[in-house]
Amino acid sequence: MEATKKRIMATRFQFLWFSFFTLLSSTVSIAKTTPRFPSSVVWPEQLSRSNTNQLYKTKYFTQILDHFNFNPQSYQTFQQRYLVNDTYWGGADKKAPIFVYMGNEGDIEWFAQNTGFMFETAPRFKALLVFIEHRFYGKSMPFGGVKDVAYRNGSTLGYLSSTQALADYATLITNLKQNLTATESPVIVFGGSYGGMLAAWFRLKYPHITIGALASSSPILNFVNITSPYSFNNIITQDFRSASENCYKVIKGSWQLIEDTADQRGGPDLLSKAFRICGNYVDQDSLQSWLYTAYVYSAMTDYPTPSNFLSPLPAYPVKQMCNAIDDPATGNDTFAKLYGAANIYYNYSGSAECFNLSDDSDPHGLGGWRWQACTEMIMPTGGNTEESIFPASEWHYENRATYCKNNFGVEPRPNWIATEFGGHDIHRVLKRFGSNIIFFNGLRDPWSGGGVLKNISQSIVAIVAKEGE
Amino acid sequence: MEATKKRIMATRFQFLWFSFFTLLSSTVSIAKTTPRFPSSVVWPEQLSRSNTNQLYKTKYFTQILDHFNFNPQSYQTFQQRYLVNDTYWGGADKKAPIFVYMGNEGDIEWFAQNTGFMFETAPRFKALLVFIEHRFYGKSMPFGGVKDVAYRNGSTLGYLSSTQALADYATLITNLKQNLTATESPVIVFGGSYGGMLAAWFRLKYPHITIGALASSSPILNFVNITSPYSFNNIITQDFRSASENCYKVIKGSWQLIEDTADQRGGPDLLSKAFRICGNYVDQDSLQSWLYTAYVYSAMTDYPTPSNFLSPLPAYPVKQMCNAIDDPATGNDTFAKLYGAANIYYNYSGSAECFNLSDDSDPHGLGGWRWQACTEMIMPTGGNTEESIFPASEWHYENRATYCKNNFGVEPRPNWIATEFGGHDIHRVLKRFGSNIIFFNGLRDPWSGGGVLKNISQSIVAIVAKEGE
Repeated sequence: MEATKKRIMATRFQFLWFSFFTLLSSTVSIAKTTPRFPSSVVWPEQLSRSNTNQLYKTKYFTQILDHFNFNPQSYQTFQQRYLVNDTYWGGADKKAPIFVYMGNEGDIEWFAQNTGFMFETAPRFKALLVFIEHRFYGKSMPFGGVKDVAYRNGSTLGYLSSTQALADYATLITNLKQNLTATESPVIVFGGSYGGMLAAWFRLKYPHITIGALASSSPILNFVNITSPYSFNNIITQDFRSASENCYKVIKGSWQLIEDTADQRGGPDLLSKAFRICGNYVDQDSLQSWLYTAYVYSAMTDYPTPSNFLSPLPAYPVKQMCNAIDDPATGNDTFAKLYGAANIYYNYSGSAECFNLSDDSDPHGLGGWRWQACTEMIMPTGGNTEESIFPASEWHYENRATYCKNNFGVEPRPNWIATEFGGHDIHRVLKRFGSNIIFFNGLRDPWSGGGVLKNISQSIVAIVAKEGE
Repeated sequence: MEATKKRIMATRFQFLWFSFFTLLSSTVSIAKTTPRFPSSVVWPEQLSRSNTNQLYKTKYFTQILDHFNFNPQSYQTFQQRYLVNDTYWGGADKKAPIFVYMGNEGDIEWFAQNTGFMFETAPRFKALLVFIEHRFYGKSMPFGGVKDVAYRNGSTLGYLSSTQALADYATLITNLKQNLTATESPVIVFGGSYGGMLAAWFRLKYPHITIGALASSSPILNFVNITSPYSFNNIITQDFRSASENCYKVIKGSWQLIEDTADQRGGPDLLSKAFRICGNYVDQDSLQSWLYTAYVYSAMTDYPTPSNFLSPLPAYPVKQMCNAIDDPATGNDTFAKLYGAANIYYNYSGSAECFNLSDDSDPHGLGGWRWQACTEMIMPTGGNTEESIFPASEWHYENRATYCKNNFGVEPRPNWIATEFGGHDIHRVLKRFGSNIIFFNGLRDPWSGGGVLKNISQSIVAIVAKEGE
């Protein structure tokens, strides 16, 4: 019985967190709080923080649907959105550079408004800033710009892939440079997380279009048979454990406690009340997922300053959560401790009166990642050792395959990314091939286990922030 | 009238030679001679020249139809043919290398049997030899292996593209190495002509799969706005002119003479007899194309030894042709001179009794190139200066576009190859990016104008044979 439960739970966890963000936004989110923009990044003084319209101009490019095929369908086009800021640009005649952000799996405005680094460095380099939205996200929707049509099934979603996205960027940048008569302006690409993976890959695949890439927190090695499936949760475990051993122990013990309570008469009611769940009923799975979300995303956004990327958070949210758990005022009441921790993540603004566990709103439009995670982005993260802060479990590819078959009727290609972009023996391969890539990783970021953490060559370098995100 | 004719002729010529081989085999070919294998390359002594079965074993790999998309159609598979020779291989445990030939636009057996270099060098390196057939050619036919279905229209032919072919090679090589437990064996890729372009691009795009490429006679720069459309015919002109100034002048003057003769009463009859055309009637266009073919392909295969790549030829066929034209025995009879020259190319074996200008047999299965030349392979070659051995003409992209629209209902993407693979400023781009590519070019090869003729870096080097092919 216990073993069965463990297996079920393990399976659920493995599914839940295969994406960067998606299942967060689709299964749990904040009740009565709405995302606020712009984020916590420090904006250049010239730009009013209260008026994001001044950050960039919105433009559209007529993009081809399929770059690699030539059937009639492939000639369909769609409007790809990109954002431009020319405030600092030195101009084409000065061969001033162009900084291009490679859009991630979401609305490009969200990323543009959270990428202060490019705005901060643009004046120094007199750079033109361009943020390109990823196909199938935000307003860059193929099939007439209608999301419901684009997301209808595998026949339409099929065109959502990393290689097509990179070819979009290549085509758009080449065209933009011609239009600006700026063919001599060097292009540097930037990106974080999945966008950072795209930036690194773009430099490797399109060196004739960009002279260098800055890839931040980009787990290009977090793929099957390259990085251990335990790596992700091991780092989260370490993040909490380094904040407080007691905090780690309380969370680690809590999963069983929640199950035991849920199985008791009156248990669900007790849980509902303890966690201020909107309405009456709470099922154990949703509650555990909801807590898991809070821990994982706090670890992923454990920035040293207050932030508002996924939700409004204080500086060092992991430490804050552990402070709540260690708070002597909660005595031995584990649920009160967990509630205090969850409140940091879900209700830092203090405006939530109750929490809706089944809210599946997706304010940043991240839903397409589920498709990507079912086709090429097979990034094993769900393994848990006996030491893990989460229940011990193994990662099985077959579980993902079954999920994808059931939900999309599609079979993943688990080896494709390594075939197309490499990953095995990356140091040996890139030591004498390629140049001008900076990989940035903070070792407290759970994805850092799949990042490039050591210099590869003189100009393919790793910057590692030991205590960073 | 004269001007109109010239325009028409110019247009025809521009169309005629946009491919490497295709229109040769589809519009004109040798009557009563059949291609003979193996070719003139010197085979290793162990391998019987009379029994090509011993050269390799034929194998098939289940290949995915569309690597870059994930719609249900993309999951279709086809059987991709590859040839393996393990006679010389040192084995996986010795980490002995694997030499892979990147199949061109035709039957892979034809290329394997004409690539003696790999067989010659294999013993020294204890290399495994692998020749992979290009999708949509030979026996590697998607859509059930039935050529008529695969070539039916743009919906099926759409999957014939260079990027898909490279991904095929990446997938097959990766899989083959795993099956041989030879993941530690370095892979070197080889190719000539279009296959050489693929080899160079493969090293650039898949450095994690191959450690180096030898790209022979590969015009990776022969694309729109990179190499002059006059380059190709300029080199052919120079090839003939350097053999004999009189030869050049006779050929240059002959185009008008043929037109004038064809316009006279009894002219077509006279031409038919002069050129031993099978049947009675010869039209001027076919005759000119037929001669043009002989000159172009002799220049393209002007090897210093007898060969049988496109047709059985003596050593230095251009020189031989000019000898025929300069032969005092033909006096002032221009048609006798041209016939003598054409006979070198079309009838070196001496078995042809007459020539069939409209024979459209395609013994090497090269027909798919027409599709490739109408989609991504927009390689301008048809321009002729006033000095050209062919009538002066300009290359117009619009002519190609019209041809493609009419024949395939498809619009070319003339800038795609440069966007995907680069080409502009290649020295600047690759000077600090990439490694381990050898470009070989003979300056008498008409395609050499679109080749890499200078060293780019310490390990991206050009070998140029001034008098070579």
